Formats: sequence, structure tokens, C-alpha cells
Amino acid sequence: MLGVTILGNNSAIPAYDRHPTAQVVTLHDQLVLIDCGEGTQMQLSKFKVKRSKINHILISHLHGDHYFGIFGLVTSMGLFGRTAPLHIYSPAGLEQICQLQFAAAAMDLPFPLHFHVLTHAAILVEEPKFLIRCFPVSHRIPCFGFVIEERKKPRKIVPEKAIAAGIPASFFDALQLGRDYTNKNGETIANEQVTIANTSGKKYAFCADTQYLPSICTQVQQVDVLYHETTYLKDLEERAALRFHSTTHQAASIAVQANAKRLLIGHFSSKYEQLTPFLEEAKEVFPNTDLALEGVTYIL
Amino acid sequence: MLGVTILGNNSAIPAYDRHPTAQVVTLHDQLVLIDCGEGTQMQLSKFKVKRSKINHILISHLHGDHYFGIFGLVTSMGLFGRTAPLHIYSPAGLEQICQLQFAAAAMDLPFPLHFHVLTHAAILVEEPKFLIRCFPVSHRIPCFGFVIEERKKPRKIVPEKAIAAGIPASFFDALQLGRDYTNKNGETIANEQVTIANTSGKKYAFCADTQYLPSICTQVQQVDVLYHETTYLKDLEERAALRFHSTTHQAASIAVQANAKRLLIGHFSSKYEQLTPFLEEAKEVFPNTDLALEGVTYIL
Repeated sequence: MLGVTILGNNSAIPAYDRHPTAQVVTLHDQLVLIDCGEGTQMQLSKFKVKRSKINHILISHLHGDHYFGIFGLVTSMGLFGRTAPLHIYSPAGLEQICQLQFAAAAMDLPFPLHFHVLTHAAILVEEPKFLIRCFPVSHRIPCFGFVIEERKKPRKIVPEKAIAAGIPASFFDALQLGRDYTNKNGETIANEQVTIANTSGKKYAFCADTQYLPSICTQVQQVDVLYHETTYLKDLEERAALRFHSTTHQAASIAVQANAKRLLIGHFSSKYEQLTPFLEEAKEVFPNTDLALEGVTYIL
Repeated sequence: MLGVTILGNNSAIPAYDRHPTAQVVTLHDQLVLIDCGEGTQMQLSKFKVKRSKINHILISHLHGDHYFGIFGLVTSMGLFGRTAPLHIYSPAGLEQICQLQFAAAAMDLPFPLHFHVLTHAAILVEEPKFLIRCFPVSHRIPCFGFVIEERKKPRKIVPEKAIAAGIPASFFDALQLGRDYTNKNGETIANEQVTIANTSGKKYAFCADTQYLPSICTQVQQVDVLYHETTYLKDLEERAALRFHSTTHQAASIAVQANAKRLLIGHFSSKYEQLTPFLEEAKEVFPNTDLALEGVTYIL
């Protein structure tokens, strides 16, 4: 299962019971936390997300509404007696900030905490079942988007065909990876004759905070769900540009250009109490859009 | 009016919808924030406390559950366009932590932010209507308690008596301060003959986090309300001592020894879902005890 649960969907100032950015991606038996605004640990409890299953935390950038919750979350993980390593990925600076706070509290964490600095587009995590990569977006300070991608699933063997073709069971792993089989007589049996393609892996992309940046479409082509920030409605395009944010129409245009299957929008400015206009405007450009609502899990 | 509104009454790990330590003291037209756990800015909004009226923030110590909310609160104050100076009092280290975060966000605050380092018992604030002082308590790291005290109110003049005694209006300010009047003939009119004492100023004391420390009673003698931490019930006295915290009976004993008029207890361990046992145990020793409940304002 690949799904994303929204913990916070608001921009800098919490308002209308909307919280700063945080979301958690479920990847089979692991959770990946993307951004960690103030109060994330409370939101995890509220929505009954198991924090012990989080091994990777991705921080897009060092504006407070995207990471001020990490100190409390990491501290609580320690108080709960976590022993598993935790990996945090962010632009430069976060490790120094954290270390200063741990020192002030005279605190030793009972688990290894590894910081990884984001500097350019790169693969961050290669697990058997998924990959995570980052790419730069365009904000006032260094900021990154992320793609979380299930690895391509192995092909399915059709056993009766494989056995009839005389392929030994010892070659079945290779068949699943798509290799052809050549027997003792030098005859080759094409993989496609004895296997069928499995469903392809799902892809989730996260783009926040960023001004309208069409070049990121190459990074997020054909994702199943694209999360893109929409801090403002379309009439405030100028303000959005000044503040390195995007509007509804711009986010939806990125979804069109990226051939995304579905668009999730969030990071709403606290100047808006009502969210329906965001949905209506985005749908004018990209119909398969949803609001990212706190507590809701969107299945890919 | 002197009152205290509880924003967070739990210890380190938020639980059962109880939040880390924060409380706001209303002093006529000003607010003083004591401690600022994660989520304090959301709690201020929830309980409709005007953050613009906060000019002084007192941080008892640098364990995260007492200050991780300050970054978000200060940042939001900036985004709301605050221009009035803000004063933060804490043990050494907080300024460096804050500056590193502001630098990472490339953020300039639109108001002057002044840090004051607590090192020993001292008067921190002397305003026309109130005083704030701090005193050391005993915790794993440097930690301070606070007393907020209305200044003694001026005496009330009884106008008909003052006029009958021939005291000119130009001396009335001096009368209010308690001075006697001497007329041209060298006759002295005692202050008490023409004035009456006004009600005395109220005193609020905050003691958290600390192990049982009877010597603090001299600092908090005869306060109207004593807030004292009660992390554990009385049966865990040994664990409380090991972790530099207090039990119900210990807090209540401090209230007795300090001749406090009323005791408020809080900083409950997240191991307890029910709070009633805290109240029952504290009342065994000091009957005029209340639980510090979030969202409730206790009037002095």
C-alpha cells in the first residue's frame, strides 16, 4: 500500500484549526514523514500514526512552519525508548540547530540520529521496496521537492508455460527480473513467452514551497499523486511570485504538464478561512484535484 | 485583575490532549507568558489570548517541553507585523538557538527581541504596576521559578478628613504613598488619620520543574496562588527524586510551609490518564488545591 496522510495543510501561521506542513507516507511496513511543522507529534497521536515506524524524515526547507516540530518529535522518540536509527534529510543547518538544543537539555538520545544534507537532485534512499529522491524547487531559501517511488514490481511467472519450456526453478528469480532463458541446446526462450508484467510501482511527488517552476515537471512526470502547494488563489499571482509561492492555477498547470494522474493541493494561506475556492479553481485547469485535508489518507 | 490561564499542563510527552507547559498571566493590560511548550501559539489562538499583549516571556529551563513553542510564536508575531519590543528571560543558551534558526530561515524580525539570561535570584521586571522576580529551583539542568507580584497599591485618601485637616491637594500624591503631613505651624497630621489602607497587591508564584526543595518556601511566602509541579503521585516519590520532579504530597507540603493561600498543581506525567487522584492526594495535605486545567483562568 502506498498512501499519504495529511497532518498539516496550512502555510506559515496556524489558523482555523489548520496546522503547519507535515504529511506521512505509508510504504508497506514503513512510514516516511515529509516536513514536520510545530505540533506534528500531537497530530501523529491524534490520527493514530505509529511514530515508531518512521525511519526517514524529509525536511523540504528551513522555514519554521516546515520543521519546528522535529525537536519535540525526536525528543519524544527518545523518551519512548526508541533504539532504531533515524535518518533526517534537509538543507544544511538543521543538524547544528538540533545539536545545540540537545546540548542545552543535556540530553543523549538512545538511538542513532543521522543527518543528511540536501544540496542537489539526488537519490536519498534505496530500500528493497522503494526509492526516495529529491530535486530543487524555487523558494526564498534552499528548498527541495521529493519523489517516493515503489520499485518496479517483478514480472509474474506463468508456471505451466515455464515448466513446458523446460526452464528450471533455479532460474525463476531471473525470470521475474525479466531475463530470457537459454537452454543447453542454445535455444533462447524470450521472457515474455513465460511471464506477464506485474502492475507498475506507484509514485508520489511532494512540491512545497515553490514558486511556479515548470522545469520541475521533468522530475515528477506521470506520478500517481502530485502534491503541490497552493498558498494563494489565482487572483494573487503577483503576491505569490513575490513570496515564492504558487496559486491554484499554477499548481494545476504543473499537474497538466507533468501528466500527473491526480493532484493534491495544500499549504493554504491563513488569510483564507474557506478552502472550497481552492478546489474549484484548481479543477478549472486539472479536474482530478483534491484538497489535502488533515486526518485524511489518500491512497495511491 | 491578576489571573493565570493554563495553556499546557502535561509533562514531557503530550498525551490525552494535554499539552506541554505554558501559562499566561494577565496583569491589568499586559500578559506575561510563562514557559512556551510546543503548540503554545495554537493554544493561545484556541483560548483567544491576545498574543500582541505579551511583552515578557519567562522560560524556566531548556528542556524542550518548556520552550519548543517559542520559535513558532516569535516567528508568527513577526508575520503578524509586531513592532513592540519583546523580552525573553531564560537560562543561558536560548538566544544562540533562536539566532541559528532565524539565520537558517533568512528571517529578520520586524520588532526588537531582547534576551535576558537567568543566573541567580533576581528582579527581572519592574513595571509601574508589577514586579517579576526569579529564583533557582532544583532540576537536572539550571531551572528557575518565578514570582509575579502586583506592586503595593496606594492608600486611599478620605477627602473630607484631609480637607478638614487643612492638607492641600498638592500633597495628596504623597499621602497616597503613606507620608505624614506637617503644616506651617509645625503640627504633624499622621497619615492614618486621613487615609485608609488599600487592598494589598496579589502575588503569583510558579515552581516547575523541581524536585522537593523546602528552601524555596522563603521565596514564595504568602503568595495568593502557588503553582507547583506534581509530575507523580505520592507512591512514586523515589522516581520523582531520581528525575528531579515532585509528588502531590511534596507540592502540597511546600504550599503549607509557604503559607500559600491556594495551590495549583500541574505538569502531570503522561503515564496518568486520570487526574482526580492528583487532586485527592494534594488535598490530604493542603485542602485549598486545584488542578491546573487547560483553558481555565484562575483569578487571584
